[in-house]
Parts: sequence; C-alpha cells; structure tokens
Amino acid sequence: MTKIYLAGPDVFLPKPLEMSRQRKDICTQYGLTGLFPLDNEVDLKAKDASLKIFHSNETLMKEADAIIANLTPFRGPSADAGTVYELGYMAGRGKLCLGYSNDPSLYAERVARSIDVRNNGHHLIDASDLTVENFGLADNLMIVQGLELYGCPLIVPRTAPADIWHDLTSFEACVRLAAARLTPPASG
Amino acid sequence: MTKIYLAGPDVFLPKPLEMSRQRKDICTQYGLTGLFPLDNEVDLKAKDASLKIFHSNETLMKEADAIIANLTPFRGPSADAGTVYELGYMAGRGKLCLGYSNDPSLYAERVARSIDVRNNGHHLIDASDLTVENFGLADNLMIVQGLELYGCPLIVPRTAPADIWHDLTSFEACVRLAAARLTPPASG
Repeated sequence: MTKIYLAGPDVFLPKPLEMSRQRKDICTQYGLTGLFPLDNEVDLKAKDASLKIFHSNETLMKEADAIIANLTPFRGPSADAGTVYELGYMAGRGKLCLGYSNDPSLYAERVARSIDVRNNGHHLIDASDLTVENFGLADNLMIVQGLELYGCPLIVPRTAPADIWHDLTSFEACVRLAAARLTPPASG
Repeated sequence: MTKIYLAGPDVFLPKPLEMSRQRKDICTQYGLTGLFPLDNEVDLKAKDASLKIFHSNETLMKEADAIIANLTPFRGPSADAGTVYELGYMAGRGKLCLGYSNDPSLYAERVARSIDVRNNGHHLIDASDLTVENFGLADNLMIVQGLELYGCPLIVPRTAPADIWHDLTSFEACVRLAAARLTPPASG
C-alpha cells in the first residue's frame, strides 16, 4: 500500500493523536496509508527523546513514497522549521512532495505585517537591512519551487479557514492529488 | 577539489557578494571550494526569477560534497526556511551536513522571549495551545539531530558576537571541520 508521510506542526496541537487519526482516515478513503510522526511512541521525558523522535521520523520518511507537508506559517512568517527540513529531505531523496498552507497570504505581506519593512529603491528591506524576498510567493522560493518541481504546486485556500490548525480541506486536496499520482487506477 | 554549498540568509544581506567573497576566501584557505547561492547570475526582475534561482541553487547543491548552513534565527525563533530546506535536501542526498548559529540561546527561550508561553502542567504551550518544543536544543530537533547524524553537532558561540550577520568565527569552525572530514591529509 502506498505510504504518505504526514509532516507538519500538527504534532504540537493539544490533541495530536486525534489529528493523526483524522488525517489517516482521509488517507484511507483515498487508498493510501498515512504515516504520522508520533506513530512510534517515544518517552518524552527520556534524556535522548529528541534523538529517538528524529530516528523515528526519519524511518517513517524512508518508508514513505511521498510527503504531505502542512506549511501553514508557524511562529513567524514561514512554515515550521522541522516540517521544512522534512520536505527538503524527501525532495533530496526524490520522493513525491506535496504541501499546503491554510494561510493564503504572501510571504512579503506577512513579513510586512509583523515587522517594519521599507523599500530602499530596489527592494523591500527590514530594520536590519536584510532583503525581504518578494517574488509574490507564499513562502521562501526553495519551498514553493521545490513543491512545483517534485510534486504539485502548494495548495492554498482562497480565504483562510476559520480554524487554520484544524481545517483539513487543503490537506484532503493534497491526499487526492497524491492518490491520483501514486495509486493505479481501479481495473474493470 | 572538494566543494561546499554555503547556505544561509546571507543572500539577503546588503552586500551579499562581499559576504560570498569572504566566505569563499575562508574555504580556499582550508583547501575547499565554496559555492554560494548567488554564483549563477539571475535577473531578479525576470518573471521566472524564483524558479531560476531554485534551479541554480539545486544545481550547486548537487555539485557540492557538503553543506555549511547558517542557521542563525531569522525573522522568528527558527532558522531561515530556505536554508532549512537546503539542509534537509543535502541530508536526504547523504551529503556531509554542517551548520552554525550565531545565537547561542535555546529555541524554547527564544519563543518565550517573543510570545506569551505558559506551562500547562505537562509542557510549555503558546497562546494557541500549541506545544513549544523544549528539549534544550538550539532549534527544532530535526535540524539539530540531523546535523549530529549527518555531519557534526551545530556550532554555536559561547556568547553572541557583536554582529550576528557578519561574524564568521563559527562559519570558519565549520569550514575547518569540513576540511578535516573531506580533504586527504597532505603527504610528506
């Protein structure tokens, strides 16, 4: 059965196992098996918990045929760093890469909303004189173009859903695309 | 000659080509060739500029034997998303991965500094009830453990340098490690 690694900051939600079950159920409906980062139980109080989680996630990624990454901006204008690492990892291994963001705004818009930016005559810069990437994309170009090249363009809703951390509409759109790309058409 | 991809938000600095030259000079001193994301000139006003930059960066990464990633926190508590994607990409391809951050603070400390967090009796959570990863690491565990596994532990200074965007001490430490791992000892 085709396996999809379900990456995202959803592991940080109050009821991650409920989110995991909902996502896996959607995958099952499309004939896919969802692998969730918390599938392998790790004692979070153990000294080497972070290393064990890393190994567990990496094992699941190696097993998976594709990744669906929740790239909704997380504690800043960009996606969750752990999720982005995993997206890059799967791209590097040549796996099918899909992703969505429940925030339809552009990266430059979000930066301008959170910090002071100004136009220096050439481009947008922040207070430290660092350029604000402004290609009209939803996030850093490596993420957006990586998805285009290794899977499908980033899925974003027309307007942000009421609950950006629990709405699964765009997630399901990714699952549908993954199924169309990875599962053989039913015979007969 | 051994090639190192020099990833980081340094491309957003006011004088990126000067930074590129300084970093490449350090690489040369250690017998390595530094590849900088802006090595291939791209017309930033062209419609498909972001795609061209993506392809250029990916070509450089495929050519490189290792990556040195500047993981200094960027517009939020985590590293620059594009850099993290590239680190994951190189890890996925089995390349040697090195990284540094010029901010010696821990991820959970930085989150607590920028937004309201509280302890719910089990762990730190933010205002949206999302857990704050708190393993005593400098950033998301995928980044930190990825470096440990595929290269060397993240390099951080004891105290932040006066100019976190231009100080190259920790960068040079990474170059030294890369040279020790990748270049044959001089004969005679």
